[in-house]
Amino acid sequence: MISNPPFSTSVRLLTEADLKRCVSLDLEALLRVEQAFAWLTERAVDMPPIQHISVSGSPTDGRHGGDVDIKSAFVPGLDAFAVKIASGFFGNSALGLPTGSGLMVVLDAGTGFCRAVLLDNGLLTDLRTALAGGVAAKHLAPETVTTAGILGTGRQAELQARALFLVRPFDRLLIWGRHAERAQDLMTRLQATSDGASLAELEIRCLPSAEEVVRQSQCVVTTTPARRPLIRADWLEPGRHITAMGSDLPGKQELEADVLRRADLCVVDRLSQCERLGELQHVEPEHRQDIVYGELGDLVSGRKPGRTSSDQVTVCDLTGTGAQDTAIALFALEKAEELGLGLEVETG
Amino acid sequence: MISNPPFSTSVRLLTEADLKRCVSLDLEALLRVEQAFAWLTERAVDMPPIQHISVSGSPTDGRHGGDVDIKSAFVPGLDAFAVKIASGFFGNSALGLPTGSGLMVVLDAGTGFCRAVLLDNGLLTDLRTALAGGVAAKHLAPETVTTAGILGTGRQAELQARALFLVRPFDRLLIWGRHAERAQDLMTRLQATSDGASLAELEIRCLPSAEEVVRQSQCVVTTTPARRPLIRADWLEPGRHITAMGSDLPGKQELEADVLRRADLCVVDRLSQCERLGELQHVEPEHRQDIVYGELGDLVSGRKPGRTSSDQVTVCDLTGTGAQDTAIALFALEKAEELGLGLEVETG
Repeated sequence: MISNPPFSTSVRLLTEADLKRCVSLDLEALLRVEQAFAWLTERAVDMPPIQHISVSGSPTDGRHGGDVDIKSAFVPGLDAFAVKIASGFFGNSALGLPTGSGLMVVLDAGTGFCRAVLLDNGLLTDLRTALAGGVAAKHLAPETVTTAGILGTGRQAELQARALFLVRPFDRLLIWGRHAERAQDLMTRLQATSDGASLAELEIRCLPSAEEVVRQSQCVVTTTPARRPLIRADWLEPGRHITAMGSDLPGKQELEADVLRRADLCVVDRLSQCERLGELQHVEPEHRQDIVYGELGDLVSGRKPGRTSSDQVTVCDLTGTGAQDTAIALFALEKAEELGLGLEVETG
Repeated sequence: MISNPPFSTSVRLLTEADLKRCVSLDLEALLRVEQAFAWLTERAVDMPPIQHISVSGSPTDGRHGGDVDIKSAFVPGLDAFAVKIASGFFGNSALGLPTGSGLMVVLDAGTGFCRAVLLDNGLLTDLRTALAGGVAAKHLAPETVTTAGILGTGRQAELQARALFLVRPFDRLLIWGRHAERAQDLMTRLQATSDGASLAELEIRCLPSAEEVVRQSQCVVTTTPARRPLIRADWLEPGRHITAMGSDLPGKQELEADVLRRADLCVVDRLSQCERLGELQHVEPEHRQDIVYGELGDLVSGRKPGRTSSDQVTVCDLTGTGAQDTAIALFALEKAEELGLGLEVETG
């Protein structure tokens, strides 16, 4: 009944299985995510505020509810951009399902038409999040990291350790989580063979407190959904770096606000997001300007130096940006096209 | 390299061609869109602000740029909800392509997993937008509409006329557009046979001014991207209804602000959106509360009566809501499942 001008449009459909053949946690992908931070500093990126959908649970049918975040970023000069839908439903684990899922949609910047749908079940989000941790460490961690620490035991705990190893090949990894058995399980996963950087040969230990991990590590990544600080400022010796990636919603907090005050360099992925969603939300608004050294893109693009001495204390507050999603989605799509992967669907 | 717990998830993929077999501009679909407005009033719907991406043009490669809007709404009590991506790229028409496109993603409210991707190229958005016009007229237009008017000549001009006819079967349709040849073209499209309500037998005329259309019609729908008012308050006789659906961004305006002041009943689809994006943006904030009678959902749910006398002047300001998208997407998916349409893709 609707009269349509004749036109043809097809969409490339890629599954998680396809995408695993395109992108992994390696230096090539890290460089693409690093570039995303440079875009944020150097180009007039249109990265709108995250759209957050709060899905309430329903006791009558046993649903736990969850959160959905939508991120996007158009980067001038690129011919396409991504819209990313990511979900986190904590009741899923009781069902034997992953907590996180999602997909990415790639739109043509010339016509607005959908070019590809990446049914990645959250894979690309996991990768670009972990790789941002690698980028932060590349610019901020001490040159030599012999001992690295991870707080948290989930999927990002594993991936952040692997991403950190790409840029700071440590000898020893210390783990802490609230549940000892989950920390043990993470250790087992990390020791398993992997087709990326293998940690199987390393010394990996679970410690009984976050404090011991922080005190013994030159570089720590926090990957928890904590709502109370896990790390205290007075645990920090000179020459330490902390990347806090867990806090991405109002009310979340992994670092005592004094950790940010104590840092010689306090870097954020995106100031406007970190103020609302990241560790920075717990610093009084009037002090934020004094405390924040710059955005990660300032360091990547060379506008501001990263770590300049071995005894600095550095912190990076990551909330996750749509620019990273556009970077990893376009990278994956490029690779898929090279490899001839995916299904071409005529939609008209 | 990423250790994943074993799980299986599949996604139903529907194309525009599939969806045309599922949903059309009829009373069944109108009732589903009507229900969406009731949800907005009666349930704790989480409908976050629209995410707007501004895609700048690029003179070097001839790209014109455009806008992308992302809407969503979780409705308590439903087991799924939609995220809708809609694009408008006005340079497309020079390429022989439709201006608007888009797709919808249906997520499971229990797990957050993607359940379906509706590659509708904007079809469902077009339908739910037109059907909202039908809902507005159902509650606000005079019982008897002999002459209807349409301002604008695009796709919504056609669909709004057809949707209006479902609830107010008029005898005569008047059209005005800035370009006379496009108005003629719309007339031809409307006179063509259609599998929905057919307007082929009606008197359809193109008039040379918006004023003549408004003065002669009991019910007018405005469907333009105007940034200056097309309709003046002093054209409005008693017993008229106007639905303004063009304004959906800051700066857009189809009605003089006095039209809203003049109306006995001024209704909006969603107050918070109309204040930023709709006609209501042109009324001073301190006067809005006095002017707005209610949301369309108040009328649908019976909390407030719609038109109560034949000589009232009524106006409805529509900006388009995520609740409509969730309603039409779930309706389409239900139909597709009944008909066994679409491709089931295993994503893992």
